[in-house]
Amino acid sequence: MRIDVLTLFPEMFVGVFGASILGKARDKGIVSLNTVNFRDFANNKHNTVDDMPYGGGGGMVLKAEPIFGAAEHVVAEHSASGTSDKPPRIILMCPQGEPLTQRKAQELSAESHLIFVCGHYEGYDERIREFLVTDELSIGDYVLTGGELPAMVVIDTVVRLLPGVLGNEQSAVTDSFSDGLLEYPHYTRPAEFRGWKVPDALLSGHHAEIEKWRRRQSLQRTLERRPELLEVAELTAEERRWLEENKIK
Amino acid sequence: MRIDVLTLFPEMFVGVFGASILGKARDKGIVSLNTVNFRDFANNKHNTVDDMPYGGGGGMVLKAEPIFGAAEHVVAEHSASGTSDKPPRIILMCPQGEPLTQRKAQELSAESHLIFVCGHYEGYDERIREFLVTDELSIGDYVLTGGELPAMVVIDTVVRLLPGVLGNEQSAVTDSFSDGLLEYPHYTRPAEFRGWKVPDALLSGHHAEIEKWRRRQSLQRTLERRPELLEVAELTAEERRWLEENKIK
Repeated sequence: MRIDVLTLFPEMFVGVFGASILGKARDKGIVSLNTVNFRDFANNKHNTVDDMPYGGGGGMVLKAEPIFGAAEHVVAEHSASGTSDKPPRIILMCPQGEPLTQRKAQELSAESHLIFVCGHYEGYDERIREFLVTDELSIGDYVLTGGELPAMVVIDTVVRLLPGVLGNEQSAVTDSFSDGLLEYPHYTRPAEFRGWKVPDALLSGHHAEIEKWRRRQSLQRTLERRPELLEVAELTAEERRWLEENKIK
Repeated sequence: MRIDVLTLFPEMFVGVFGASILGKARDKGIVSLNTVNFRDFANNKHNTVDDMPYGGGGGMVLKAEPIFGAAEHVVAEHSASGTSDKPPRIILMCPQGEPLTQRKAQELSAESHLIFVCGHYEGYDERIREFLVTDELSIGDYVLTGGELPAMVVIDTVVRLLPGVLGNEQSAVTDSFSDGLLEYPHYTRPAEFRGWKVPDALLSGHHAEIEKWRRRQSLQRTLERRPELLEVAELTAEERRWLEENKIK
């Protein structure tokens, strides 16, 4: 997979692209991670990438031309390399976008070329949204300075799904999310830390008892913290009954 | 404000902490941004920070001791500096945490010391959650490699709210989120780009007409993309009627 990020702040990506799973995926040649400063495509005397909004109001608006120019440059580069004939997904990071989900990350992980457009300032010229991008994504309903951190978040969710990136053990572990419940508590050594002990059930050695304890903890935690997840979770009839009883209390 | 991030990957933060709004806030002395590698607090021969889970299963679990040690170190350092007698908020980034909201960012922006705990691997020893942290936060329901990117996201949402970080113009602009609708489309020069024109309403120069167009666009976009936001948005009676009519179509 090739990933290009169009940004005015390429230096923000250096540490993140070099470390941990992204760095490893890059070293293994599974993904190519690039940043492009779209100021290089401003095509005007002062390398201006933003301008005042038509109709007035505060803030500056990112101009269409530098973004179109940068995107078309990386598309042409990718086509010239002949590695894929699939058109790229061009993803605008913005608060109005579709909320990121694990399903969306899975969908994007099947692509061969992703281009992320990261804005700062007030907003983007609408023609970027209408005539260039294929997707608009938001990572959540909170206000961020720019699209760079959201792009990193999407890239992390996508790259870790690519074959060969995670070891088998890790992959299996994250599959546990698929039951739609929050995770049960984990404990490791020491069995007693500052007087706080590991629950007896986990020390019992009885596999069935441990499984039962963990499942019950998952249910309880989900009930306490994110009850809305229970509506779509895969539960047994017994678990549904247990939940009903505990809701009443 | 002082912010400490406990992480095994401090190098991931260098670019993000140095650029854009965070870098400026740091340069102005509004926030101090630090990373602490909690491996330095492992306190064992091989600097081990993780271990196998009690009760079996895949993945490794972060040990309690290095996290307690690192957190207590930065708390002591902050107290010694005598800048605040308010206890710090110790925030665990994890998928089971409270979903991040703009309200939460505002709440955290009133604190004087935030400590973020970023894990990798399967999970944390539960005693960290029970006896050390004051908050658990999640940035969304998708699977990430670690807590580093989520911590950066929270830090960005918080720091940009600190007095003096954003210019007045920018602050005013983001207040427009407070009406609970998605933003209207923005346009800037040129008035025609590759044949695609700026809407006439924005070129009219009639302030009232522009406002009406923008508000209608906000409503329409919210209806199309995030209709659930309309339930809590502040709308006039006329707008509610308009929405009803448009829903029927």
